Amino acid sequence: MPLEIPEVVINRLPLYARALAELAARGEQVVSSQTLGEMLEVTPAQIRKDLSYFGRFGKQGRGYNVQLLLAKLREILGLDRQWRVIVVGVGRLGQAIVEYGGFEPQGFHIVAAFDADPALVGKEVGRVRIRSVDELDEFLRREPVDIGIVAVPARVAQEVVDRLVAAGVRAILNYAPTTAHVPSDVSIRHIDPVLAMQSMTYHLKQRQSSSAK
Amino acid sequence: MPLEIPEVVINRLPLYARALAELAARGEQVVSSQTLGEMLEVTPAQIRKDLSYFGRFGKQGRGYNVQLLLAKLREILGLDRQWRVIVVGVGRLGQAIVEYGGFEPQGFHIVAAFDADPALVGKEVGRVRIRSVDELDEFLRREPVDIGIVAVPARVAQEVVDRLVAAGVRAILNYAPTTAHVPSDVSIRHIDPVLAMQSMTYHLKQRQSSSAK
Repeated sequence: MPLEIPEVVINRLPLYARALAELAARGEQVVSSQTLGEMLEVTPAQIRKDLSYFGRFGKQGRGYNVQLLLAKLREILGLDRQWRVIVVGVGRLGQAIVEYGGFEPQGFHIVAAFDADPALVGKEVGRVRIRSVDELDEFLRREPVDIGIVAVPARVAQEVVDRLVAAGVRAILNYAPTTAHVPSDVSIRHIDPVLAMQSMTYHLKQRQSSSAK
Repeated sequence: MPLEIPEVVINRLPLYARALAELAARGEQVVSSQTLGEMLEVTPAQIRKDLSYFGRFGKQGRGYNVQLLLAKLREILGLDRQWRVIVVGVGRLGQAIVEYGGFEPQGFHIVAAFDADPALVGKEVGRVRIRSVDELDEFLRREPVDIGIVAVPARVAQEVVDRLVAAGVRAILNYAPTTAHVPSDVSIRHIDPVLAMQSMTYHLKQRQSSSAK
């Protein structure tokens, strides 16, 4: 496998896997890059190019075998196994994350949750008991995790990320509304609905001013 | 203002605005593209190029005036006004969205929430009473909204998006784990933590297999 696959390509692979799982559930055996492209609003050429990084999947003019390509993508992305996840920050947002039913079926197993608020420590949320953030380092030494979800206020996000990274966590999903930094051997993704909405209001404003003319 | 600004540039502008607001809150008057780049992990050249679409903000070698650039970005992005938002789907996730405290201070005002479940209709969540999704079209005729947040199950997401678009909503924030489609004059953004985690497990897997060698 080539070493340097562009990050934008890697970010599209889960989308492909999800679309293929939908097709498989519908009983489809074969899919063209055209159809896959329409499902995902990606050009067929882009799909062929992205997948070519990982080998030859399709036969010219015959489309992709849905099950084979799905199995290969699941293997490439590590979707065929369980990943251990913790949540740091169990306010309203963190609680919704812990209770969200969409992670477990995808192999993301929330094993613990931490908060700094003594009023929350000891309470149950989802199937986990909230622990004090003071126990975080010791917990991670005892039970390494794959992914840390950060749902703390923006002002303490970097500090929490630094602690997770120092304790060996190599993937961070950051919900705090701030850009947190990690070393180059750690992955980070930001989930920020406010930024997403702000990039749409640009278009709303453009449309409103052009229709007002 | 030029008409064709690349979408990737528009998507970065809210990040710049947020970093500038942080700098302004700390009392900083001037910022270099170098410092801004370090805050956001974007190259200084990229920042200068992105901002050049909207005019000349910085003086060579002197950096950007924080307040002026922030005010300009807020104007460009429409952050200086209130936007009317509805939430469709008020299960566990939709409820967390309605109750999330981060939208209102940024000008995103949730004016109504809708669900198909009769057991939820009439209940209060945050400051809004949950309405039946049957009332959606009539509500939108009476009280147009700017942004529709979709937090329904994947299998009904496209249908809900279509109804919102037909009723004149021009921006959709989709939390359903599926790629929903909109016409070219409508904006859509997808919030999907599972996809974000799946793009990180690729790296986790690569690192684990290389360290096992």
